[in-house]
Amino acid sequence: MTLAPLPRVLIEPLVRAALLEDLGCAGDLTTDMIVPLGHQARTALVARENGVIAGLDLAKLAFELIDPLIVVQVECADGAITAPGKAIARVSGPARGILTAERTALNFLGHLSGIASATASIVAAVHGTRAKIVCTRKTTPGLRAVEKYAVRAGGGGNHRFGLDDAILIKDNHVAIAGGVAQALRRARAAAGHLVKIEVEVDNLDQLKEALGEGADAVLLDNMDLEMLARAVAIVDGRATTEASGQVTPNSAPAIAATGVDLISIGWLTHSAPVLDIGLDFEA
Amino acid sequence: MTLAPLPRVLIEPLVRAALLEDLGCAGDLTTDMIVPLGHQARTALVARENGVIAGLDLAKLAFELIDPLIVVQVECADGAITAPGKAIARVSGPARGILTAERTALNFLGHLSGIASATASIVAAVHGTRAKIVCTRKTTPGLRAVEKYAVRAGGGGNHRFGLDDAILIKDNHVAIAGGVAQALRRARAAAGHLVKIEVEVDNLDQLKEALGEGADAVLLDNMDLEMLARAVAIVDGRATTEASGQVTPNSAPAIAATGVDLISIGWLTHSAPVLDIGLDFEA
Amino acid sequence: MTLAPLPRVLIEPLVRAALLEDLGCAGDLTTDMIVPLGHQARTALVARENGVIAGLDLAKLAFELIDPLIVVQVECADGAITAPGKAIARVSGPARGILTAERTALNFLGHLSGIASATASIVAAVHGTRAKIVCTRKTTPGLRAVEKYAVRAGGGGNHRFGLDDAILIKDNHVAIAGGVAQALRRARAAAGHLVKIEVEVDNLDQLKEALGEGADAVLLDNMDLEMLARAVAIVDGRATTEASGQVTPNSAPAIAATGVDLISIGWLTHSAPVLDIGLDFEA
Amino acid sequence: MTLAPLPRVLIEPLVRAALLEDLGCAGDLTTDMIVPLGHQARTALVARENGVIAGLDLAKLAFELIDPLIVVQVECADGAITAPGKAIARVSGPARGILTAERTALNFLGHLSGIASATASIVAAVHGTRAKIVCTRKTTPGLRAVEKYAVRAGGGGNHRFGLDDAILIKDNHVAIAGGVAQALRRARAAAGHLVKIEVEVDNLDQLKEALGEGADAVLLDNMDLEMLARAVAIVDGRATTEASGQVTPNSAPAIAATGVDLISIGWLTHSAPVLDIGLDFEA
Amino acid sequence: MTLAPLPRVLIEPLVRAALLEDLGCAGDLTTDMIVPLGHQARTALVARENGVIAGLDLAKLAFELIDPLIVVQVECADGAITAPGKAIARVSGPARGILTAERTALNFLGHLSGIASATASIVAAVHGTRAKIVCTRKTTPGLRAVEKYAVRAGGGGNHRFGLDDAILIKDNHVAIAGGVAQALRRARAAAGHLVKIEVEVDNLDQLKEALGEGADAVLLDNMDLEMLARAVAIVDGRATTEASGQVTPNSAPAIAATGVDLISIGWLTHSAPVLDIGLDFEA
Amino acid sequence: MTLAPLPRVLIEPLVRAALLEDLGCAGDLTTDMIVPLGHQARTALVARENGVIAGLDLAKLAFELIDPLIVVQVECADGAITAPGKAIARVSGPARGILTAERTALNFLGHLSGIASATASIVAAVHGTRAKIVCTRKTTPGLRAVEKYAVRAGGGGNHRFGLDDAILIKDNHVAIAGGVAQALRRARAAAGHLVKIEVEVDNLDQLKEALGEGADAVLLDNMDLEMLARAVAIVDGRATTEASGQVTPNSAPAIAATGVDLISIGWLTHSAPVLDIGLDFEA
Repeated sequence: MTLAPLPRVLIEPLVRAALLEDLGCAGDLTTDMIVPLGHQARTALVARENGVIAGLDLAKLAFELIDPLIVVQVECADGAITAPGKAIARVSGPARGILTAERTALNFLGHLSGIASATASIVAAVHGTRAKIVCTRKTTPGLRAVEKYAVRAGGGGNHRFGLDDAILIKDNHVAIAGGVAQALRRARAAAGHLVKIEVEVDNLDQLKEALGEGADAVLLDNMDLEMLARAVAIVDGRATTEASGQVTPNSAPAIAATGVDLISIGWLTHSAPVLDIGLDFEA
Repeated sequence: MTLAPLPRVLIEPLVRAALLEDLGCAGDLTTDMIVPLGHQARTALVARENGVIAGLDLAKLAFELIDPLIVVQVECADGAITAPGKAIARVSGPARGILTAERTALNFLGHLSGIASATASIVAAVHGTRAKIVCTRKTTPGLRAVEKYAVRAGGGGNHRFGLDDAILIKDNHVAIAGGVAQALRRARAAAGHLVKIEVEVDNLDQLKEALGEGADAVLLDNMDLEMLARAVAIVDGRATTEASGQVTPNSAPAIAATGVDLISIGWLTHSAPVLDIGLDFEA
Repeated sequence: MTLAPLPRVLIEPLVRAALLEDLGCAGDLTTDMIVPLGHQARTALVARENGVIAGLDLAKLAFELIDPLIVVQVECADGAITAPGKAIARVSGPARGILTAERTALNFLGHLSGIASATASIVAAVHGTRAKIVCTRKTTPGLRAVEKYAVRAGGGGNHRFGLDDAILIKDNHVAIAGGVAQALRRARAAAGHLVKIEVEVDNLDQLKEALGEGADAVLLDNMDLEMLARAVAIVDGRATTEASGQVTPNSAPAIAATGVDLISIGWLTHSAPVLDIGLDFEA
Repeated sequence: MTLAPLPRVLIEPLVRAALLEDLGCAGDLTTDMIVPLGHQARTALVARENGVIAGLDLAKLAFELIDPLIVVQVECADGAITAPGKAIARVSGPARGILTAERTALNFLGHLSGIASATASIVAAVHGTRAKIVCTRKTTPGLRAVEKYAVRAGGGGNHRFGLDDAILIKDNHVAIAGGVAQALRRARAAAGHLVKIEVEVDNLDQLKEALGEGADAVLLDNMDLEMLARAVAIVDGRATTEASGQVTPNSAPAIAATGVDLISIGWLTHSAPVLDIGLDFEA
Repeated sequence: MTLAPLPRVLIEPLVRAALLEDLGCAGDLTTDMIVPLGHQARTALVARENGVIAGLDLAKLAFELIDPLIVVQVECADGAITAPGKAIARVSGPARGILTAERTALNFLGHLSGIASATASIVAAVHGTRAKIVCTRKTTPGLRAVEKYAVRAGGGGNHRFGLDDAILIKDNHVAIAGGVAQALRRARAAAGHLVKIEVEVDNLDQLKEALGEGADAVLLDNMDLEMLARAVAIVDGRATTEASGQVTPNSAPAIAATGVDLISIGWLTHSAPVLDIGLDFEA
Repeated sequence: MTLAPLPRVLIEPLVRAALLEDLGCAGDLTTDMIVPLGHQARTALVARENGVIAGLDLAKLAFELIDPLIVVQVECADGAITAPGKAIARVSGPARGILTAERTALNFLGHLSGIASATASIVAAVHGTRAKIVCTRKTTPGLRAVEKYAVRAGGGGNHRFGLDDAILIKDNHVAIAGGVAQALRRARAAAGHLVKIEVEVDNLDQLKEALGEGADAVLLDNMDLEMLARAVAIVDGRATTEASGQVTPNSAPAIAATGVDLISIGWLTHSAPVLDIGLDFEA
């Protein structure tokens, strides 16, 4: 599947809020004082490092909402690989608006491209294994939809979008229910027909209990590589296997080599560094 | 000055939006299916690594907005140093609400504590120099107020809050105006009496031009250490000196040693990794 | 599972919006002119017909947001069966506020109880079969979360909450993909591990194609009873079977008797009549 | 008067909210996985039963807000009579956007056309009498403006829009005031010059009291046909007469035959079933 | 009728928005730097001039939303007459919060008390005549509900609240319709039973035309005193008479003396000066 | 500097809210009943008195948001001087929309032009002195950004935009801190490098204390002319001098003659009367 863009109705409120946050009560004092009203500029969004782009629609919208006379011509699509000096988009028109929207556009583009790039590098690191890299609900408050999109742009997959679209039984749920089997039975009795059930297991006994109750997926949390491999063998295709727990770019390949189906990584959305992108004025 | 808390009226909309983003249309399916309605729990927010805390009010509010019967007893204040295993707050009451709000609370607390911790580590690294560490407008869209607060919690300072509360003349403004002096004169003619003017300079000639026009502050962008030191000597206290440009935790001490007044670091807010904090259920 | 209440943070915006819609620019002219400011009243929300209650938290909130001095004492819980003359809740306090909030409280309570009652009556009608009654995305704009909750209160289940929490391949998708198998393969390749895939089939050939591709569920759309029964026999437990298409309270029992797992009914949320509930002043 | 369209500024927030409710965090998973990005479609909104159309502007906006490349060509106007198989509008353009917006568009169109159709059928049933059919404040929370519009589209009239645009003295007001006359006097003393006063009366004594105080309108609540006819005779044109109380499509003609000016029916907005309309793809 | 307070649900959004507008991104820098966190203060809102108070609930809410520990004890009610040095309310508690909320509280209180005071002075000036002083739709954008409330606090009445709660036929409507009679007939045919119809007339011929069509009220626009008196004589009680058009406090008494029922004054809401009220710290 | 327009993203929410406030639940009843749907009109916004225009973008947007077919052709720019009878803008297109948007457009235009006109008249009155006229935070809740813009349109300057963009130490801060010097020291220790510090002084001793601590600006509050002149002499250019306290148009020139740098006037934004502007239909 090619990457599906998010509808404008979904991203526009985020861009409007970000612009208002930056404009404050009086707008761009500096630019309004220094740049003549009619001054035209030709600029480009240019990558300063290697990575994968995500967030072009948000950046474009930031410029257009500040001044509809600004023309943004994208030079690549979300999901594209970029490199230092490569133009991502051309931005032309009234210089005032371009300068006023610049930071908001770059804040979105850098943040989301950072997530896409981090995802892509881990996806590449586990290439050749069956492991799919997925993100978690450890997202930046307010930005979940676009951060999960950025993970997709980087070639990763999404885990749950929220508390309401799947059942993920965590260790504390298990403890309160009095065991993996009890928790699974309660969930099975109540779950809708389109909702899958995943359960976190901390050891192989719990894993067998989960399989016995027909869990759709098992979250193998904080297991070492040896135990992960044994878990995969035990499951033997009867459920989706997911490894999680402090996964980093460095530890991912070895985890993938154990044969798990999924590796979920909170780091992708809560700690991936920004991709350095700048706005260059052309001569 | 001790750290001033942000008024609830300012943070409440952020917490409400984050909760709604996670609850979706049906709330916490898993918890509602597995945890009995009246089940009580005693839990603690516990650090998993060294760092500085920020965002306790937001985390507290996440729990209280989900269920006012949840009692959050903070064990430290924003700005406090924490360590692995240290309890940051006790969270007691209905187990359902605690589990439902957990991720939102942790997403705020981890993100903001990550920024505070990153700030604190750089502040410590430049200890003994005159350099103050400040953040920039390179913040996560929608979270500027709380991210700038987190920088303060980590002992750093804030640069501009938005485009409207100070004048910062960047290289592109200078280019359009036709020089540093012209840009400064336009700004001086239009600026309000409580607004300071800072100008970015890329070399020592521009620096002298800026001083000649009485700039309040000079942004020494992307200068090497030797040029920074010469710039500080030239300024000689006539303006505030700010170093910027790809500053990292590693490069900060040497930059500080040049005698600059400020080091501004976008990394603090756009790329600081999350501080690992978890919610532990007590026996 | 007992019915889980929706968090206040989710329903409060709906109640506030509904009150503002009714208050307009000047509030309750009639009550303010006629009822003395301090006048106290004891009232009750009373059912005028048989049914099942849903929406008590919203009704309660309507009174409390208008005047925190109003005390609402519920006499039953959502999901409870009611009858003509039965008190659902006691509402006491300042008469002005009670009268001002009355219509908003009743509009929520009547609408949601209407849905719960309709659901309950169909659930009862198919009692003894394996069929579960579920709602659809044919909800009233803006009220999906609470309408789906009302279906649960009536003993029904929920289908998808939105476009993003499950994959439901409809006839038009099939047509564009070029067949049931092609559509299923595209979905399987792209779907997350916690997302199930359901496909609409219009005849038994398509059904077999769907089973061959391992669909999790099949939507048997607009089939007559005989074809439904044959479809259930063909599926033989390999997928969840769902009957849909102009199902009414009258036709549901015969459909259930075919052995389908689910019957989805848009009528529950788009056309169920209000449950008649009134506010009675006590002597 | 021809039906006046509602300004876009009034309906746009409703359509945006409904779309966001359906899109959730990730948009239309199914369509994005199965339908190629550039695929074009020609479709039509087609009625499946007889009725009166209302809500075309909202349906149109749902498609256009998802993708401005979608072209919606209406084939009739709100208030038009439709029949099974009749095309209401042609919807052409990118197939993805059409499928994504389909449900939201139909939810508005079906709900509002249902109200218009119900209104029209009762209006027809009382044709030849002086009775005008009007709706009440028993509307679906959040949708009052468009539901009252749908009543107008069906040939009905609107009663109060909210608590602040007219004075309607109900039985509880009368009881607290100590009588119809006292209540009317208080209202008369305080009412603005453009605000009319209506009072609910339960018997003929109260009716005479209301007339004696110069009520502009009298609400004849839950009276049987004989008492209604006597009330109309007593009023003799000195006030507007309104019959209300559990009016159904069946009982309306006999009520109208008593000579009342108005029949108000909550059923129109709180219980009218949806009008069945579908989206058909053209070959 | 005593003045009815506006429900909190209606004023709270205004107060929250005003506080956020003033707090910006970082809150009250000055107070946070200078006033110790626990510092307590006893202060009073004190009038600096004669006038009538309106807006106490909004001022109170501004303090309480900033810090729920602040206690506001009102010393009078909206509609009360005040004088220089008179305490309107005591405000005690954390000094920081009091100083932070001060300006927002005073902006509401001064603005609304200014409107109430202006209204009261004109109401007093026409005392003894039959003329009632009413405001118009010439209100400050976003504040109509509270400004109309302030007019009521000053003893005035309200004209229309918006475009949708009464029919007011202006000169341009008359021109387009082709005459007063035609306009009135169109309105009469379409108006709801609780909606009154007023028409603007510029001369006595139009007035007679309006009376002939049974207008409920006539707006005598920009007539001189002699013509006003003749108009009142012609109307002779058959309709409500309203004088309007650049009415000022000075011209109102003579206009009232002509016998008109109403004098509508845009000046009350668009140009009344603020009432000077300050916050005094007590020793 | 020429006046910089406010970005549409900043003013659009204000205009949308104002339109919704006026449209209520049903829109413009009168116009919809009387003006035929296709009727076209040519109108002009015309000044009825001398003044300075501000708010054209908001007025234009009010018409365009009601009906995009309305064409608004401005005849002057914000900041332009106008006179009785002068056309400010031509407004052509569907008559219904023009009449519906008229009041909202005029409410913005009249209010903001009133502020600009008041500002301009005081600016003219102090012409030839060094005094700059600035506004304060005494603005109408919700409208600060546009009111401060209107002051700029009238040739004035802006003081702080909110509590967070500068430090202004008031008398109560001084009292709590225990003196001007202590307050300034606390602020200096905590202030960011781009934030200036101003302190209110009530007498010359405090003034000297402020200068000794290096205050950037001194607010000379409620001083008589003689003391103001002495204060200016004492300051002797070492700080910005600002006079404030019940300044009126009449008292401003004498205050300016004392040599102060700034005169701040709350009256500009809280009490300036509206500029009378009307909408005239052309033959």
